[in-house]
Amino acid sequence: MVRQIYDVLGLGNAIVDVIARAEEDFLLKERVRKGAMHLIDERRAEHLYAVMGPATIVSGGSAANTIVGVAELAGRTAYIGKIKADDVGRIFAHDLRATGVHFATRAATNGPATAQSFIFITPDGERTMNTYLGACLNLTSEDVDEMTVRASAIIYLEGYLWDPPAAKKAFVKASHIAHAADRRVALTLSDPFCVDRYRTEFLQLIRTGMVDIIFANERELKSLYQTADFATAVDALRCENVLGVVTRSEHGSLVVTREATTAVPATPIERLVDATGAGDLFAAGFLVGLARGADHTTCARIGAIAASEVIQHIGARPQTNLHNLMAENGLA
Amino acid sequence: MVRQIYDVLGLGNAIVDVIARAEEDFLLKERVRKGAMHLIDERRAEHLYAVMGPATIVSGGSAANTIVGVAELAGRTAYIGKIKADDVGRIFAHDLRATGVHFATRAATNGPATAQSFIFITPDGERTMNTYLGACLNLTSEDVDEMTVRASAIIYLEGYLWDPPAAKKAFVKASHIAHAADRRVALTLSDPFCVDRYRTEFLQLIRTGMVDIIFANERELKSLYQTADFATAVDALRCENVLGVVTRSEHGSLVVTREATTAVPATPIERLVDATGAGDLFAAGFLVGLARGADHTTCARIGAIAASEVIQHIGARPQTNLHNLMAENGLA
Repeated sequence: MVRQIYDVLGLGNAIVDVIARAEEDFLLKERVRKGAMHLIDERRAEHLYAVMGPATIVSGGSAANTIVGVAELAGRTAYIGKIKADDVGRIFAHDLRATGVHFATRAATNGPATAQSFIFITPDGERTMNTYLGACLNLTSEDVDEMTVRASAIIYLEGYLWDPPAAKKAFVKASHIAHAADRRVALTLSDPFCVDRYRTEFLQLIRTGMVDIIFANERELKSLYQTADFATAVDALRCENVLGVVTRSEHGSLVVTREATTAVPATPIERLVDATGAGDLFAAGFLVGLARGADHTTCARIGAIAASEVIQHIGARPQTNLHNLMAENGLA
Repeated sequence: MVRQIYDVLGLGNAIVDVIARAEEDFLLKERVRKGAMHLIDERRAEHLYAVMGPATIVSGGSAANTIVGVAELAGRTAYIGKIKADDVGRIFAHDLRATGVHFATRAATNGPATAQSFIFITPDGERTMNTYLGACLNLTSEDVDEMTVRASAIIYLEGYLWDPPAAKKAFVKASHIAHAADRRVALTLSDPFCVDRYRTEFLQLIRTGMVDIIFANERELKSLYQTADFATAVDALRCENVLGVVTRSEHGSLVVTREATTAVPATPIERLVDATGAGDLFAAGFLVGLARGADHTTCARIGAIAASEVIQHIGARPQTNLHNLMAENGLA
């Protein structure tokens, strides 16, 4: 067995976020569904940038945000995702490596540009994403380095990987290698509409034992089980053979196993500025807890604190030393 | 006389900020003087980016920050500054225009890249800047559009313009045109070390009537008059034939004229996150007040509120609707 080097390895779409405030009217005018992630082409990306307000540019990508959160919590991390060797790709790679994340995926030298997501923050703090996948479309199973997967205690995969067609194979390959090495595999459902697109496949991943841990928010879980009733969805999740972690914004989270469902409250905040990255950072905290062998309630508490930091400023990457923040809360 | 179209026209170095948190040790190791603005070359820029932490990218530039603040306060604005037609330049231009600023300076198609400032935020919220001037070195008096200057009630010039050699002429040309059109000219002293570099010239600008309004913080004012005693510096400023506006961080501001010196308190804040842009946004609020014919105390109150917004998040551009913020404070 390969020696464990990393607590968590993330596999996801490598994206840089371009974030601006927007009024509700703007979303209506641009016909974007509030709170969702929309896939857009290059032309639409150019249009949205032209009409959007002054922007803040911060690296993003769901699994990458999580991995950076784990690294900021002093976890050892690695990331696999596809950028192009362009200015935006350089920003993405810099921000990962500057946080101490091992990132060695070969950058594409031709083909589409590094992915960008144009994110609109409405006055209520909700984020609406418009993602140009660009270079992410070129992630293949060849990019999954076997040694890195085998050296990681937990592999964290994002549901969004189902959007670029070739990435599924990378996902499946990573899961197989991980399980052969006796590692755990976690999946985040990413987005209710993403679940809509790939419901059958996600349920298959869960039921064939391809994933061991599921992260979902309330809307994603309801979408997975096609029910409007949250309790019904939680019941369905309880019957799967996975560890389920369900986030509910200000209502906290639920940890769902066959044996028990545990509710953990959210961390109170002063002001919701930008919800981008809330779920990603919750997952980061939870995974760090798991990697250290903490009980599920403690894992969820670490997740809640990490999430509370990232939603009080613009951007899905932490701006405060998360490790110190945990220490202040007696959790470091 | 040309009809007034703009409340404030800004002329300055067009810069995009790359901002990261850093410990005090890091500044020592990299030999950068805390709180100052350092001029760096391309090689040093590459080095600093390589060693700096994960970054947030936001448009900056002292006078540009001020102009965006004025625009966010519903003032009519224009800006003159030099970018290159590259990715970073596109970001700078987008962010100005997206705020409604008239920005028509021709972008350079060759020569050095658009300017970037690598800014380190220490845990105390102080910012230390390392600026690669790049394309700013190509700003010349030809870039000063006479009609735009004549159409602006106040011309706002940054002392940093003395760094790129050709920009001085642009500065002087703008001042001459403005005064010939019976407009007012404001100068910010920018930085105590900038004052050190150009003290004689700045004093000459003041004493030959080239500028009518001076913005300075405490350290810049002391540097201008080469005194360690603040009262002595204020006395010296009072004897000049200008409207003096002196900012003192949490101690508020002083409005200094021959007739009176008025102290206005700072706006209380919850937490100082990043001091970048504090002076720029104070100037924005003050200038908006002046343009609307408000008394000096009201001008300084608007400035204090605008400054308080920008120091509670990363980046020198507002993230809240400043106009609403003023309305909440009975100042819109």
